[in-house]
Amino acid sequence: MHPLTLSPDRLFPADPTTRSIARALYAEVANLPIISPHGHTDPAWFATNAPWSNATELLLAPDHYLFRMLYSQGIALDDLGVPHRGGLPATDPRAAWRLFASHYHLFRGTPSSMWLDHVFAEVFGLDVALDAQSADQVYDAINAALATDAFRPRALFERFNIELLATTEGADDDLRHHQAIRASGWQGRVVTTYRPDSVIDPEHEEFRGALIRFGNMTGEDVESWKGYLAAHAKRRADFRAMGATATDHGFATPRTANLSTVECEALFAKIVGGTADADDAELFRAQMLTEMAKMSQADGMVMQIHPGSCRNHNAALFHSHGRDKGADIPMRTDYVGALKPMLDVVGNDANLTIILFTLDETTYARELAPLAGHYPCLRLGPAWWFHDSPEGMRRFREMTTETAGFYNTVGFNDDTRAFLSIPARHDVARRIDCAFLARLVAEHRLADWEAAELAQELTVGLVRRAYRL
Amino acid sequence: MHPLTLSPDRLFPADPTTRSIARALYAEVANLPIISPHGHTDPAWFATNAPWSNATELLLAPDHYLFRMLYSQGIALDDLGVPHRGGLPATDPRAAWRLFASHYHLFRGTPSSMWLDHVFAEVFGLDVALDAQSADQVYDAINAALATDAFRPRALFERFNIELLATTEGADDDLRHHQAIRASGWQGRVVTTYRPDSVIDPEHEEFRGALIRFGNMTGEDVESWKGYLAAHAKRRADFRAMGATATDHGFATPRTANLSTVECEALFAKIVGGTADADDAELFRAQMLTEMAKMSQADGMVMQIHPGSCRNHNAALFHSHGRDKGADIPMRTDYVGALKPMLDVVGNDANLTIILFTLDETTYARELAPLAGHYPCLRLGPAWWFHDSPEGMRRFREMTTETAGFYNTVGFNDDTRAFLSIPARHDVARRIDCAFLARLVAEHRLADWEAAELAQELTVGLVRRAYRL
Amino acid sequence: MHPLTLSPDRLFPADPTTRSIARALYAEVANLPIISPHGHTDPAWFATNAPWSNATELLLAPDHYLFRMLYSQGIALDDLGVPHRGGLPATDPRAAWRLFASHYHLFRGTPSSMWLDHVFAEVFGLDVALDAQSADQVYDAINAALATDAFRPRALFERFNIELLATTEGADDDLRHHQAIRASGWQGRVVTTYRPDSVIDPEHEEFRGALIRFGNMTGEDVESWKGYLAAHAKRRADFRAMGATATDHGFATPRTANLSTVECEALFAKIVGGTADADDAELFRAQMLTEMAKMSQADGMVMQIHPGSCRNHNAALFHSHGRDKGADIPMRTDYVGALKPMLDVVGNDANLTIILFTLDETTYARELAPLAGHYPCLRLGPAWWFHDSPEGMRRFREMTTETAGFYNTVGFNDDTRAFLSIPARHDVARRIDCAFLARLVAEHRLADWEAAELAQELTVGLVRRAYRL
Repeated sequence: MHPLTLSPDRLFPADPTTRSIARALYAEVANLPIISPHGHTDPAWFATNAPWSNATELLLAPDHYLFRMLYSQGIALDDLGVPHRGGLPATDPRAAWRLFASHYHLFRGTPSSMWLDHVFAEVFGLDVALDAQSADQVYDAINAALATDAFRPRALFERFNIELLATTEGADDDLRHHQAIRASGWQGRVVTTYRPDSVIDPEHEEFRGALIRFGNMTGEDVESWKGYLAAHAKRRADFRAMGATATDHGFATPRTANLSTVECEALFAKIVGGTADADDAELFRAQMLTEMAKMSQADGMVMQIHPGSCRNHNAALFHSHGRDKGADIPMRTDYVGALKPMLDVVGNDANLTIILFTLDETTYARELAPLAGHYPCLRLGPAWWFHDSPEGMRRFREMTTETAGFYNTVGFNDDTRAFLSIPARHDVARRIDCAFLARLVAEHRLADWEAAELAQELTVGLVRRAYRL
Repeated sequence: MHPLTLSPDRLFPADPTTRSIARALYAEVANLPIISPHGHTDPAWFATNAPWSNATELLLAPDHYLFRMLYSQGIALDDLGVPHRGGLPATDPRAAWRLFASHYHLFRGTPSSMWLDHVFAEVFGLDVALDAQSADQVYDAINAALATDAFRPRALFERFNIELLATTEGADDDLRHHQAIRASGWQGRVVTTYRPDSVIDPEHEEFRGALIRFGNMTGEDVESWKGYLAAHAKRRADFRAMGATATDHGFATPRTANLSTVECEALFAKIVGGTADADDAELFRAQMLTEMAKMSQADGMVMQIHPGSCRNHNAALFHSHGRDKGADIPMRTDYVGALKPMLDVVGNDANLTIILFTLDETTYARELAPLAGHYPCLRLGPAWWFHDSPEGMRRFREMTTETAGFYNTVGFNDDTRAFLSIPARHDVARRIDCAFLARLVAEHRLADWEAAELAQELTVGLVRRAYRL
Repeated sequence: MHPLTLSPDRLFPADPTTRSIARALYAEVANLPIISPHGHTDPAWFATNAPWSNATELLLAPDHYLFRMLYSQGIALDDLGVPHRGGLPATDPRAAWRLFASHYHLFRGTPSSMWLDHVFAEVFGLDVALDAQSADQVYDAINAALATDAFRPRALFERFNIELLATTEGADDDLRHHQAIRASGWQGRVVTTYRPDSVIDPEHEEFRGALIRFGNMTGEDVESWKGYLAAHAKRRADFRAMGATATDHGFATPRTANLSTVECEALFAKIVGGTADADDAELFRAQMLTEMAKMSQADGMVMQIHPGSCRNHNAALFHSHGRDKGADIPMRTDYVGALKPMLDVVGNDANLTIILFTLDETTYARELAPLAGHYPCLRLGPAWWFHDSPEGMRRFREMTTETAGFYNTVGFNDDTRAFLSIPARHDVARRIDCAFLARLVAEHRLADWEAAELAQELTVGLVRRAYRL
């Protein structure tokens, strides 16, 4: 078996001068608290504080980064314990783990192995690299730890030094877990985020049902345009009561619109009347981004836009397994024309914050940095999803900093449902940011004291201000 | 206060071997004369040689790189002394400077701070970094210097060792400042560039008035296609008489066309008749690029094409403040199909030079380098505008050299209206080019003597030949 | 004259730690056999084993990398001995070589000079750099060598340690040279590849004639949809009999379709009836990619897709000189929507292998790595054509590895008709891969033993498995 070790210098450039600067910068931010303003962990974990079951169900079966790669090399999802539409496959979790372990080499050079090795070494204290030989030893060690109180969700939350963790809930969610967390007296700060996609996107497979629940929960006539907007306002207030400071919107494109009220009413009538076609649906989503921006002007919620994913690209897999099974593929995304209608309405409002994300790195230097480097309401979210990786983060800084600066960015998002990997992900971001700053210092493009200030800002300052925490 | 120092090694890679090579290459080109074949300085400065007023009016209020970033962080343009359509705001220039100084940290990691620090240290001899504490001291020192003869435009031109400086004037400009420079007997070589956008783009807000002046100045019937072309030919000759060797064209797209004379006449009739729609306007611009290329075949002027900017993206700001207020956003740009009609006409003429620029870096390796690496008439302009930066220049070399080589590029353009920053900008370009060459030498991809020859070419050789100076 | 030397450290990063790791990795793969699963060498060379004539006809006139660059700088193709439609120009090959040599500086920083210097130094044992002074000396030395038995095709094949070399033939090729190679008893493994573009693309200038030959060779009624498909199946079997394990498809776009049989029959009737328009032609090519994929499911041939080149962009040059004269320009390419119809049919088949190539590097991280990191049938071909270069290969690894890993790639393709440069090209790829792995090791992102395993995989392991050799 091979040993598992994490070098204290990992992710720092090899050049000794630069590495030494990076080390010094990192030392000052390594132990700062974790602020996670956008993610997908399950609030039920912190509400119930129940122990997790085993390594496969906690670390493998829910992680689309892992099973998508294994699937790409011909391994069946059933054999990995990944749930399908009919429920859980009858897979022995230990067998699934062994299968994963024997293919762990597939993850060489990917963030997944970097995050997981950090989880194994730092969270579980393991000292052996995962492979076919060590599979059982690792599996047993993890399961033994998970059975202890020290590995329950709240204990890990505290051990991870998390200052704030935001989850994401739909507009028709009753927020019961967040209420339970608050009622429990536990001091961990877990907040929600308003993600109304299922009641805004007429092409979402749950749109009909979600809209009905949305009406029932708010008591508004959500089949009228006025009532529908009022329902959003009410639910936004409900979410704010559960700590939300932000909304989030994830459509295929960032298209926005600026229709008159009469046009909105006519369009909405087609949407709820079931006569809308694909163009109507796209126009409705576009108009609703502008409506959400206007509501954010009114209630102060920060708006996040996550566009550009072609969801459920694999038709057969979507049919058998449903959403979020590793088959979401990024697309070319245009922001310049798409955002203009919304920016014509709210763009010059310095009290509004809209955070833009992208899966299309070509827009960093060409569109996003110039937009954020001009419009007072715009900020740039960090490198996202496929680009939440050492090379991806480096490219983000290299392609946005010279036009947008550091101060139009908002710190790091882990954006994960893999709770145990949160420290690993923030650690990677801190290291890459320090490595980037170190290069600027070594090339005399920043003074050392400027870099030290920026390292703090990139770790905790910008995120607190951008998300109004 | 923090000291302001410029490291002699700035922008060189930290690796000692590479840095040492870069230093040696740079030493041989650092003091070569500045050749600035494309920019936007005001020829009136050199015609009148009047002193500049103060730091705010010279360095801050006209610099869209600076005020766009400040505006993006919620600072009002009025508070920075930026002119609006109604004229100058009633802003105290010292107060504007203090506001700028107290936000100077926003520019960390951007070319703006690198250029300005160079201006402060090298042009004005300051030794303190700009911030809220030093604001007054810096402001007073600059103003005191500007009041002296040594800081008048011509004195700085000579001190900067400028061999040639090209300005840019519209087709309806009377070139009086250039005539005055020539009449003055001063030996500084300031030339103009023919930029006929306002008489070519039917959607330009000054099109009507510019066209009338264009006709009056040339005595041609500019409402007939034949007379309109003749007017261009006359004005091109006028510009050549004021030293111009180049034309420049800045439309949203690089689309070209190759219509018959009959089609041109019909299209032009719609343009001057006011019945043209957006498609007609685009087609007219497209056809005029080909016409300009044909005129360049005839009169030997080098043609520059600067496409891809969505001008005046911020509708409210354009309404209040007009053009060039930091709200121009790059767009995705296609060259392969767009240029084909023009290249079908002139592409194989080795006596013609067309220099292509881009704001869409994705076209460097995919389209521009392959085009310039084949067509005899094409050359690649340097990294432009948002990409005129250390990382942008590095990407330009990395993405164009392997297909187009160095010899299909044309040296550096500063493209600036900020006269005092010209030495800084050329210095950055020389350093980045030497750093790139040094890496190739260190990796044994070039011999040291080849790199030394190339450093000379990239600094003075290519620009002189490409612009026919 | 300048000496010609190849540094043993060429292409390795200058940082001593990283370079030392790269050296060690490279030492273990430098002498592994060359496997060339995709290229364009002439099988007649190995069938006849006739000596090559001279340096110009072997190295210069057929190499579009070389003459495109020279042409871009105003040198006439006739003066380089490049064939035109009328045949060979009456150019003295020595004069052509001198012209080339006197412009060899144009290739500084390009892969062409790196490859050629390797050919000069390693294949011919020259120790003087090519330039105007050394032109004759180099020319004479090469010609003298070519006249010896040691420089005949088969001898060089063996000296180059080539384990397998794939050529590419059209669907209407009689494969006589491959038959002759087999009949000769020579043990060199030269195989063919099925490239049916000319019988699939209705807009190919040889479509009509190729289709007739296709019918004659197979005895099928290739004017009926059923007969046409049967003819493909027969020819694929013919190619497999000559060692082919792969097919190759090079259309302008990667668009695919999934039509019903009735729709296919109607479309094909238009194609063969001569009534098809450009949309029909595009739809037919799209449908045929899906048909080829289904045939690959049946017969096990690996499918390669090489899209995104705008062929014959220079109309005048195409008229005078025909295809493959350096005027093919890459275009923006979409894969996400384009491939979906085909992937809906075959995407989840882990027994099928489809290798995707691109000329649009923006698709590496955004589209190709996510697609290959999910679909079991997809693999990523190496950096191609304009991107088959040190910087291009580096970007390929940096932009694909974190999402697709190393194991969804397929090793190196030289894709060349320049036989003598094959060792040079593989050497560059091995060095760049080792340099990339070395950086990951130096940054503690890979263990040294992992990098050593990967270096073997990237050199011989992945290519053998992907191409089923």
